[in-house]
Order: sequence, then structure tokens, then C-alpha cells
Amino acid sequence: MELRDGRVNLFDGSEHVAPPPPGVMRWIDLPSADRPQLELMRERFDFHPLTIEDCSHLDQRPKLEEYRDHIFLVTQGFAAKGDKIHELELQELHAFLGERYLVTVHERPILALEEVWVRLSTEAKLLERGVDFAYYLVADGIVDDNFPILDIIADELEELEDSVLGSPKRQDLQRIFELKHHLVSMRKVLSPQRDVLGLLAKRGDSRVNDRTAVYLRDVYDHLVRINESIEANRDLLGNALDAYLSAVGQRTNEIMKALTIMSAVFLPLAFVVGFFGQNFDNFPLMKEWVHSDGLMWVMIAMCLSIPAGMLAWFKHKNWL
Amino acid sequence: MELRDGRVNLFDGSEHVAPPPPGVMRWIDLPSADRPQLELMRERFDFHPLTIEDCSHLDQRPKLEEYRDHIFLVTQGFAAKGDKIHELELQELHAFLGERYLVTVHERPILALEEVWVRLSTEAKLLERGVDFAYYLVADGIVDDNFPILDIIADELEELEDSVLGSPKRQDLQRIFELKHHLVSMRKVLSPQRDVLGLLAKRGDSRVNDRTAVYLRDVYDHLVRINESIEANRDLLGNALDAYLSAVGQRTNEIMKALTIMSAVFLPLAFVVGFFGQNFDNFPLMKEWVHSDGLMWVMIAMCLSIPAGMLAWFKHKNWL
Amino acid sequence: MELRDGRVNLFDGSEHVAPPPPGVMRWIDLPSADRPQLELMRERFDFHPLTIEDCSHLDQRPKLEEYRDHIFLVTQGFAAKGDKIHELELQELHAFLGERYLVTVHERPILALEEVWVRLSTEAKLLERGVDFAYYLVADGIVDDNFPILDIIADELEELEDSVLGSPKRQDLQRIFELKHHLVSMRKVLSPQRDVLGLLAKRGDSRVNDRTAVYLRDVYDHLVRINESIEANRDLLGNALDAYLSAVGQRTNEIMKALTIMSAVFLPLAFVVGFFGQNFDNFPLMKEWVHSDGLMWVMIAMCLSIPAGMLAWFKHKNWL
Amino acid sequence: MELRDGRVNLFDGSEHVAPPPPGVMRWIDLPSADRPQLELMRERFDFHPLTIEDCSHLDQRPKLEEYRDHIFLVTQGFAAKGDKIHELELQELHAFLGERYLVTVHERPILALEEVWVRLSTEAKLLERGVDFAYYLVADGIVDDNFPILDIIADELEELEDSVLGSPKRQDLQRIFELKHHLVSMRKVLSPQRDVLGLLAKRGDSRVNDRTAVYLRDVYDHLVRINESIEANRDLLGNALDAYLSAVGQRTNEIMKALTIMSAVFLPLAFVVGFFGQNFDNFPLMKEWVHSDGLMWVMIAMCLSIPAGMLAWFKHKNWL
Amino acid sequence: MELRDGRVNLFDGSEHVAPPPPGVMRWIDLPSADRPQLELMRERFDFHPLTIEDCSHLDQRPKLEEYRDHIFLVTQGFAAKGDKIHELELQELHAFLGERYLVTVHERPILALEEVWVRLSTEAKLLERGVDFAYYLVADGIVDDNFPILDIIADELEELEDSVLGSPKRQDLQRIFELKHHLVSMRKVLSPQRDVLGLLAKRGDSRVNDRTAVYLRDVYDHLVRINESIEANRDLLGNALDAYLSAVGQRTNEIMKALTIMSAVFLPLAFVVGFFGQNFDNFPLMKEWVHSDGLMWVMIAMCLSIPAGMLAWFKHKNWL
Repeated sequence: MELRDGRVNLFDGSEHVAPPPPGVMRWIDLPSADRPQLELMRERFDFHPLTIEDCSHLDQRPKLEEYRDHIFLVTQGFAAKGDKIHELELQELHAFLGERYLVTVHERPILALEEVWVRLSTEAKLLERGVDFAYYLVADGIVDDNFPILDIIADELEELEDSVLGSPKRQDLQRIFELKHHLVSMRKVLSPQRDVLGLLAKRGDSRVNDRTAVYLRDVYDHLVRINESIEANRDLLGNALDAYLSAVGQRTNEIMKALTIMSAVFLPLAFVVGFFGQNFDNFPLMKEWVHSDGLMWVMIAMCLSIPAGMLAWFKHKNWL
Repeated sequence: MELRDGRVNLFDGSEHVAPPPPGVMRWIDLPSADRPQLELMRERFDFHPLTIEDCSHLDQRPKLEEYRDHIFLVTQGFAAKGDKIHELELQELHAFLGERYLVTVHERPILALEEVWVRLSTEAKLLERGVDFAYYLVADGIVDDNFPILDIIADELEELEDSVLGSPKRQDLQRIFELKHHLVSMRKVLSPQRDVLGLLAKRGDSRVNDRTAVYLRDVYDHLVRINESIEANRDLLGNALDAYLSAVGQRTNEIMKALTIMSAVFLPLAFVVGFFGQNFDNFPLMKEWVHSDGLMWVMIAMCLSIPAGMLAWFKHKNWL
Repeated sequence: MELRDGRVNLFDGSEHVAPPPPGVMRWIDLPSADRPQLELMRERFDFHPLTIEDCSHLDQRPKLEEYRDHIFLVTQGFAAKGDKIHELELQELHAFLGERYLVTVHERPILALEEVWVRLSTEAKLLERGVDFAYYLVADGIVDDNFPILDIIADELEELEDSVLGSPKRQDLQRIFELKHHLVSMRKVLSPQRDVLGLLAKRGDSRVNDRTAVYLRDVYDHLVRINESIEANRDLLGNALDAYLSAVGQRTNEIMKALTIMSAVFLPLAFVVGFFGQNFDNFPLMKEWVHSDGLMWVMIAMCLSIPAGMLAWFKHKNWL
Repeated sequence: MELRDGRVNLFDGSEHVAPPPPGVMRWIDLPSADRPQLELMRERFDFHPLTIEDCSHLDQRPKLEEYRDHIFLVTQGFAAKGDKIHELELQELHAFLGERYLVTVHERPILALEEVWVRLSTEAKLLERGVDFAYYLVADGIVDDNFPILDIIADELEELEDSVLGSPKRQDLQRIFELKHHLVSMRKVLSPQRDVLGLLAKRGDSRVNDRTAVYLRDVYDHLVRINESIEANRDLLGNALDAYLSAVGQRTNEIMKALTIMSAVFLPLAFVVGFFGQNFDNFPLMKEWVHSDGLMWVMIAMCLSIPAGMLAWFKHKNWL
Repeated sequence: MELRDGRVNLFDGSEHVAPPPPGVMRWIDLPSADRPQLELMRERFDFHPLTIEDCSHLDQRPKLEEYRDHIFLVTQGFAAKGDKIHELELQELHAFLGERYLVTVHERPILALEEVWVRLSTEAKLLERGVDFAYYLVADGIVDDNFPILDIIADELEELEDSVLGSPKRQDLQRIFELKHHLVSMRKVLSPQRDVLGLLAKRGDSRVNDRTAVYLRDVYDHLVRINESIEANRDLLGNALDAYLSAVGQRTNEIMKALTIMSAVFLPLAFVVGFFGQNFDNFPLMKEWVHSDGLMWVMIAMCLSIPAGMLAWFKHKNWL
């Protein structure tokens, strides 16, 4: 059993940069994908040029490619940065899984991988279960890192729904779109990731022994659950968006109602005071009335009764 | 035939915590998933560590995992709390189905299981039909508990549709989203549950005999029906939401119409009384007219005819 | 060849309540699913308890279950009540199809079945083509009863589209939702019904001979066409709803335009008459002007030109 | 090689109304599906009663039914009437394809068929390539008639999009729904048509020789392309509808803005002239001011500055 | 190894216009699909008339057709014109891939093909890897040209989302529809393109050797990634459209609020000044009050307190 870290000066012609002799399990981790090292790997392990090409470019998609001596696997997942997730960090691991060797290449440090590395360094027997089991441990870690993100999203969604059904704010909308963005990104990566792991777990392959396949099936199960959560959350986000939009429409209604009620009260009043503001002295017919208080009382009565009537009518129409 | 309840002090080194001898059917129920008991089970029954891991964490998804000696099944369903469903309770049962033993693990009491347990305690012959039949009885109960929920949802939906097409209220919207939430949750669980039971019913497996398979197919049928109801209800909820939104838009229209009609009546009137409120004494041309009643009658005529004309026009435009 | 009707006093220990001897085709119809009769059938024909259970509960879903001696079939379809369809009646037939017998159970009278029964009573040779052919005739009738419903829906849809694009009414919306409700119900039933008949027509089964299979394929074809019509109608209903909603928005615009135009005309006028309503005697500067007609003509000119200008501008903006 | 047209008096006991002798290819076309002719065909060619039933009813769906001696094919497509498509004409051809004979039945004249008929009449050798090749020629013509329709729809769509993004009109909406109607109809027919021709082209069948299969695969390819165009056009129609709806909303905004700006200008002015229209002589405090021009200048200043201030504010809010 | 360019005067009876002798690889490129050349090719290479038909018409769809001696491939992709993509250029290559020859036909120059041609002219050994490898190089180039387009679209989308959530403009809407148009076009072409290359890479075919198949699988992978990006971008475009529409609704609200607030302030004021503008001298009751300043102060107090009260109420209702 051997663990070889590319960070340590492994590439000074070391004999360890090669498939191990029978009976030995060897895991080599290249924490940075620099070209000369990759070329050396290609020569010694007989990797296909296309896989080396892939390794030197991040942002591949999850895939499984079978070659004569090894399987080439691209494994991806997300890790949240901070508490409220505003940015997702894509974790990408390229792995060559042979019968007795595992070569992992990545550009940024992957927490799950570090943990497994440390664990294997101390529990030597674990690597003896096979390099496929080591791959399982890393993949399991990468996949499980997605759960907290979905939990946070679910929590935020619940908050959003409450906020949106209560008093929707412009920021809610922005947050809805942000979350949808995250879910689209996650689905784009984790849906093919699920298929890749399903493929790896289910088919018989000499590089994956039956005992490990059971564990990989478990990772596959997690990915199925993750993908179902993504779909359910997308559904609920659509809900929240609909609620937001309907709340905006509702608010338009409320504002309109306020405007209408005010107009209903004051437009007639403006007419009333305008009417009684006439210079009635001009009109012979009115002259006798005009200098009594009667007209004033009529006006005041109208100023009170018209708004009252309007409001009663609105009450009746259920607009208040 | 034996029934063993984990609640009874079964784990004091009891010999019953093990696969039964040939000819005996044994069902052990662990009503709480505490770790030491699970560990003991694992040793005695040779369960896979991953299944033990699953058993100690609720909120798995429905699944079927085959091992050499037994099938590991996660079965889920919902039970309503109270009459109007505001919260759904997820029921989750973990079961190990061997040829002669059934081990069930759950954290919260499952009503359907209790009923079957009591029934088997009294009708000893039933367990002799096999532990798979016992599993069927429990699964059937868990699945059938979902029907009343769907019935309630369908009833509420009908009420909602009436309310929304009549006089939509803000609470209707909230209820629509609540129901959609429930349906999303149910689909997330019951759609894989259907697949699991379909798988169990259809394939030949030594742990499930043909007679029981017929019954499991029946449970599968129920799940298909449940899932179809979920889809149909989702469709109708979308309907209700559309109706709500269109009702909101309609109401905006009505309010706008009221405002417009009022403005159409009173804005011209304001102009008329303003116009005739002029101090016509200033204008030589008008002087002769001004002190007769003619002008007043003209004004009054306009105050009556303009609103009447407006209302007639709106009538013609079909806005009243 | 025999036809036996459960309504006739068949269950007084009649020997006919049993599979017929070789060479004889027997069709027994139970027009009401009462328990003792079903129990008797179960004993004599060796039906599975679950099928008996199903028979005594309406509202199953279309399904095909194979047993050793017979196939159990649930066949469903809709019949319209009246001309304008406001309610759909679900027709449900439970059938046990053996090699020489057909047992049909239903709770409400099924028109298609009655017709076939009468036809077979008079044309004895038809039953000799096999009980599967009798089943085909009934299923064909039940399925074809759905066509008129779809025709009515299509007609109503066309009317709705015209109405909605012309002058949408609140009832249109209600009708749209009602039709959608019907289509959701129909799809829920007729989509599995199609699968069931496809299965029955296509697989080789000793209970369905090749000649009948050709006919069943024809019923299957009808169901495919029905399901395609349902989908197309759903699509067009979505269209009608969109048209309705956009018409509501359009109407808001028209009302707003009316309001805006009126305000545009009368608000400036109110200002003009207010302005010239000032007591210009107060202002020394104005005094000389004030008692000529000039000011009045200016005011009248403004009262005419401002509305004219506004309307011209609106004309230019294409709002009239 | 023979071509027989049902229009010519073929059914006077002609010996040609029958499968041809070996070595001869015979194509009989019935341009009207009248019952006695169909019955005669049925007897002589041994056609299945159900196919005769189908032939006498237009509006079947595309299908392929295999019988011992022949394949029964329903082929459908659309032809546009006029330049701007307002109505689509469904073309429906029923064909019996035997090894040495082809019987085609249709109710309305099918242009593509006429052309092929003429061509074969003059190029005798073409029919010697087999009756399947004759069927290919007709089917190819029927399918290719759909391309111009899709081209017209695509052109109209482009116009619609421009119109809708520029100055949307009520007719645009009507046209959008009309086009969608057409696309729904086309998909309903051409999607099963594609499957039927795919089936015919791909499977080995004695009635279709390998050379013709290559040509049928080409027709299948056209149908795939047609169906993809239908889907893409549906997508773009959705686009156009969204654009229309958003334009309506936008227009509401513009109208509202005009109203708000006008109100913002004239409501304060109405207050100002109302305020200064007070009879200040009443108030001792004002008396000294009132008969100077100062008050008038203040009023005029306010009448100019308030609208200016409002407009500046709206400018700042970006509403102008 | 030979490269033959149709532009060079190849068709003067050259012997090279024919399948090459064993041991020689020959690639002939026809940069313009003129009929006589195609006919010559057909004769010499025994191509199927349908493929020649296809070659002389652009705008086919990606496909793979197998003939005895060769595979006929239509390969399509897009290239952007300029920086901001306003128009996509469809690149279409028709290829006949035999065991020792590759014939490519296109109407417009294809950059990727030119590059490969030059490269092969200088690196003679590359063509010895087989004509299938030459096809791979061209297809790879055509497919990879799509990536920059998707990158540009993704960048624009991000800008659009920011703009739309900030201050949406009419042009944003236009751009959203333009991008959607592009994505619909791309999907229509690149989705079948993916299937074609998947088919070519995965099945064993004598014309594609195993070494090349690995490379084709890589192109297939790129196409899968491209199609996933298209879907994800469509999703996000839907987002942007929703955001735009909700922003329009929001803006309506803001405008309405401004209008309502202004009306709330000035309509009561108009009433107040109208009321106090009455000629109180007419009313005996008021006479004593009227010539003091008290009434004026009351009016001024109301002119200040009513707007203040209204604004406070709006503040309370959270409308400011």
C-alpha cells in the first residue's frame, strides 16, 4: 500500500510514477495539473492523450471513459462558500482508476480528498481494500458536500415563501433568481454525475470489486436524492415566484383602491363646493334663497352625505 | 411463527435476536433505532454496515437493496395530522426481509404497523403465509394512509376553485401554495415508492413468493393511482392559481372602471361649475345675460346632461 | 353459447354459476356488485380475493391482471350527460375473461353493454366467435362513447376562442376551467386505459385469439386517437386562457386610456377656469384688461385649444 | 405493369379488380370511397372488414397495420389553401400495399397522387421497381407538401415578432393563436406519421424491398425535420406571445405615466389657483397685500415653478 | 495518402475522382456543390442518388446514412459573426466516408475544414491514421466552434439579468427574444448532431476504427455538454424574462403610487380651498366669523395638516 503526493518531489525520475508491482496498491495525487507532470504520467501509465487534454482543462462534465487498463472518471460537486450561499464552488476531480493504482488530478484543493488522504495515511489497512474503495471515499465526500447546500436552499426557500406571502420585497425577487441560478448549475452537473456513478456501481468491471460496488450504489442513491431535491426545490421556487408576482398584482389593486376611494370622496366634493361657490347673486331665481343659511346647510349636508354614501357603497362592494 | 418486539427486553443476550431455525417465521420490530441494538442486529444477522447507517438516520428515500441473505427496504408514506391538513407526517419504515425473518426498524410509531402486529398476534396462521406477507400488510397500510390525504386535498381544491372563481381572497392564494407544497412533498416520496414496490412485485425473488407478489402488485396499483392523483391535483392547482391571478387582474379592471366612471362624471362637472363660477360681470359681452336665470339653467342643464351622456357612452362601451 | 344475467335469479344454486363445459361459451353479467353474489362467483370460478375486493369498490383504475385461469380487466370510459357537458359520468366495468367464460360486474347500467347483450341474444353466432370477442364489443362501445364528448369539447373550445378574442366574459373563464377539469379527468382514466388495451391486443395470450386481437388493436387505435385529442385540446385550452388573460390586460389598457384622455382634457381646463376665476380686480396690473372681453376670449380660446391639442397629441401617440 | 383507376369503369366485373398474376405489378386507385366498390375490393383481395370500415370514414390517424397478405397504411399530411394560410387542408390516403399490388383509397383528390399517376403512366419502367416504390412516391409527395406550410409559418412568425416588439396590435394576438392552432393540428397528425414511416422504413418486410426502404428512410428524415420545425416554431410562438403580453403591460405603464405626469402638473395648479382665488378681502391680515400685484406674481411664479419642479423630478426618476 | 481539392481542376477526366487503390487514403473536397461534379462523383464512387440530391440542397439536418461502401454524414454547427452575436452562421458539411476515401461537399467555406486541410497537407502522416480520423478532425473543429457562441450567450445573459433586475429597458426584452431564437436554432441542429456522433462513435463499423472511435466519443462528449448548456441557458433566459415582466409590473406599482400619493395630497386641498372660497357673506351664520383672520388660519391649518396626515398614513402603510 502506497500513497504518493505530487506535491512532494515525486517527479525527479522517481520509480513510483508508474503502475505498482502486483500486490501493491498505489494512489498518486497531483494537486496541480501542470503539463510536464501530466506528460510523464501519460508515458509511464500509458494514458490516452485525450484524457491528459481533459485533465489540463477544468470545467469538463462528469463522465466515465473506459480504456484497456483503466477507467477515466471526471467527478464533480459543489461546496458552499460561507453561510448564506451566494457563490457555489465547483469541485472537480479527474481520476484514473486502474486495478492497482488510482491517479487523481485536480487544480484546486478538494477538502473531501484531503480528509481521505489523511485517513488512509493513518489507517493503512483501508487502502488494502482496493484503490476503488479509496475512489469511493473521495467521491462520497464530494457528493455529500452538496447536501448542506440543498439544506440551506430549502431553508431560504421557506423564508422566502413566508416573506413573499407576507410583504414581498424587491430583494426577494433577486434572491429567487439567484437560487434558481444555483439550482440550474447544480442540476447541470449533478444529473450527469448521478448517471456516471450509477454506471460505475451497476456494471461488472474488473476495476470495481463487488464489495465496493455496494458502497458506490450508496453514493448513487445519495445523488438520486440530491437530484430529486433539486427538482422539488425548483418547483417550490416557481411557487415563490408566482406568489411574488401575484403579490405585486395585489398591491397594484390596493393602491388603485386607495386612489379610487379618495377620488370617489373628493371629486364629488369639489363639484359641490364649486357649485355652491357660484355667484348666486347673478341669478334672480336664487336671490331670495341665497342670503339665508339654508343654502349653506344644504352644501354642508352634501359635503358630509356624499362621502358617507360613497364609502357605504364601497363597503357594500367589499372594497374596504 | 414468532413476533418479537424490541420494546420488550429482547437484547439481554436473547437467542431470538438471530435468524430463526428452518420452519420458523420470525418478525422482530425495533420501535426505536438505538445504536447498540442495531449493532447487535448487524452481527447476528450479518446486515451490511451501510444499511445500519441508513437505519440510524431518518429521511432516507424509498429504496430496495438486495443482499445475499435479505432485501433491505425503505418504505415511506404520509399521514395527515388533524382534519384540514396543514402538516403532513412522514412515516418511514426500514425493513430487512429475509426468507424466514423480517426485521423492521422505525423511530416514530407507525399506526399501520401496530395494527398488523396486533392482528398477527391474534391470528397466528397469518404469519405462516410468510414474512413477506407480513411486510405486504404493513406496506399496504402505510400506502393506504395516503388516500385520505388526497381526498382531503381534492375536496379543498374544489372549495378553492369555487372561492377563487367567485370572490378570491388572499388566504386562497396561501392555501394554494400550501397544497402545492404538500403535493411536491408527496410526489418526491411516493413516486420512488411506486417504483420500489413495482420492482418488488414483478421480479422473481426467493424472498417474495408468488402468492404474495399478487398482493404487492395490488399495493403497486394503489401507488400508481396515488401518483396519478397527485399529478391531476397539481394540474388543477395550476388551474386554481391561474383563476386567482386572472381574478386579481379582473378586479383591477373593475376598480379602474369605477375610478374612470367617476372621473368621467365629475371632472367635466368641475369644469362646468368652474366656468360658470367666473365673475361674468367683468366681461361686457356677458353682462346682459348674466343677471338673468338663463345662465344658471344652462349650467344646471350641463351638470345633468354631461354625466348622463358619459354614462350612456360607457353603457354603450359595455363598461357598466 | 349462453348468456346469463345476474339480474335474473341466477344465484339460487344455479349450476350456471360456474365455468362452462368445453365447447360452450358463457357470459354472466352482474349488474350490481352485491357481496354474496361476488362471494359465490369467487368460490365457483376460483377468482382471487383481491379482484373480488376490487369489484365491490368502484373507482378503480383501468388495469389488467393475469391469473392462472383468467384475466381480470378493469375498463373505464366516460359518457356525457346532456348536450353541453357539465358533468361526466364515469363508466366502469370489471371483467373476468377466461377461455370459455366472461364475467362482467358493474354497479351502474352501462349502455354499451346493454346493446351488446341484446345483439348477442339475437345473433347467437356472434358469441361463438369467443367470449373475448364479446369483451371486445363491450370495450369498443365504452371507448367510442368518449368521442362525442371530445367533439363537444372541441366545438365549445372553438366558440370559447372566438368569444375570448372578441369580447371575453367572466363565464368564459369559468368554462375554460371546467373544460380543463374534464380533460384532466379524462386523461387520468383514458391514458392507462390505452395502455391496458395495447397490452391486451399485442401480447399473445391463450384467452385472446388472433382474430379478436386485430379488433382490440382497433380499439387501442381509437384510444390513442382519443388521448392525442385530449392533449391537443389541453394545448388549445391553454391558448384560450392566455387569450383571456391578455384580453383582460388589454381592457385595463383601454379603460386607462379613457381615464387618461379625460384627465388630459379636463384637468388643464379646471386649471384654466380656476386661473381666470381669480378676482383680477385685486391686481392693479390687470385692472385695465379685466373689464374688457379680451380676457374672456383668451380663456375661451384656451378652453378649446388645450383639449384639442391634447387630443391631437394622443392621436399622434396612437392612443385613440 | 398496370395502373387501374377506379374512376374508369373498373367495377363492371372487371378481372383486374383482384391481385395480379405473378410478374405483374398492379396499382388500383379509388378516388372516391363508395361502399359497393370497397365491398368488392374486400372480397377479391381478402381485405379485413376493419380496414374497409376505416376507408369509408375519413379522419383516421396515420397508422400501419399488418395483415397476412398486405400492409394497410393510413398516410396523412397537410396542404395550404392560398398564400397566407388560414385554413389547412388535411390530405388522407388509405393504401393497401401487397407484394404485387397497391390499392389506394381517398375521398378528395390528392395532388401528389395525381402527379405520380401521370408520371407512372408515361414512365412504365418506374412501376417495375415495385408497388412499394409507387407508394414511396406518393407518400413523399404528401409529406413534402408540408414544407411550404412550415416556411410560410416561419415567415409569418418573423413578421409577427417584429410587429409585436415594435407596435403590437390586437390582430397579432389573433394570428399567434391561429398559428398555434395550425401547429397543434400538424403535430397531432405528423408526429404519428413520422413513427409510421420510420416503422415501415426500418423493419425488414417482404412487401418493402431494401432499395425502396432507403427511399422511405429519406421520407422519414423529412418527417423528423418537419416535426422538429413544428416544435421550434411552437417555441418561438410562445416567445411572440410573451412579447405581446409584455408589450401590453409596457403600454399600461406608458399610459399610466402620462396620466401621472399630467396629474402631477395640474392637480397642484388647481390647488394654487383655488388658493389664490380666495376672497382675501375677508381676511384683515391680507388686506394690505391683496390689492398690490405681489400676490399675483407669487401665484404666477407658483404656476410655473410647480410643474417645472414636478417635471424635473420625473426626469430624475427616469419617467420621461 | 492523397488530398484532392475540387477547386483544382480535378474533373477533367482525372483518374483521381474514384476510390483509391488499396493502401492509399484519399480525401476529396468539393468546395462548391455544382451538379456535374456531383454526378461524376456519383458514377465513379457509386453514391446513392438520394445523397447526391441532399448534397445539392443545403439546410438538411444532421444525419447518418449507411450504404454498402460508405457512410453518408451530414454534419452541422454554428459559427458566430462578429463579437456580439446577432446572426448565427450555419455550417453544413456533407461527407461520404468510405474505408479508404473521404469525400466532403459544402457550399460555403468552412473554417475548421480549411485548417485541417492545411494541417494534413503538411503532416502527411496524419492522413495515414485513416480518413475517419480526418473526418474526426473536421467534425471536432465544427463542433468546437459552437463553444464561443455559448460563452458569449452566457455572458450576455449575465449582463441581461443584472440589467433586468436593476433598471429593465425595452431593448433587454428584444435581446432576450433574440437569444432565445438563437438557442432554439442551436438546439434544433445540435441535438440531432449529438445523436449522430454518438451513433458513429459507439457502434462497431468497419469504416471507423477503434482508435478513432475514442476521439469521436470525445466530440460526442462535447456535444452533450453543448446541449446541456443550451438547456441551462434556456432556463436562465426564462428567468430573465420573468424578471423583466415582474419589473414592468413593479414599475406600474411605483407609478401608481406616485399618482395616488399626489391625488391624496391635492384632491383634499382642492376641496379645502374650494370650500373656503365660498362667498360666506351670503350666509348670515358665518358673517361674524368671516371678516376675522380665524377662518384663514383654519384653512391654512387644514392645507398643511391634511397632506401631512395623508403622508403619515402612507408611511404607515409602507407605500413611501
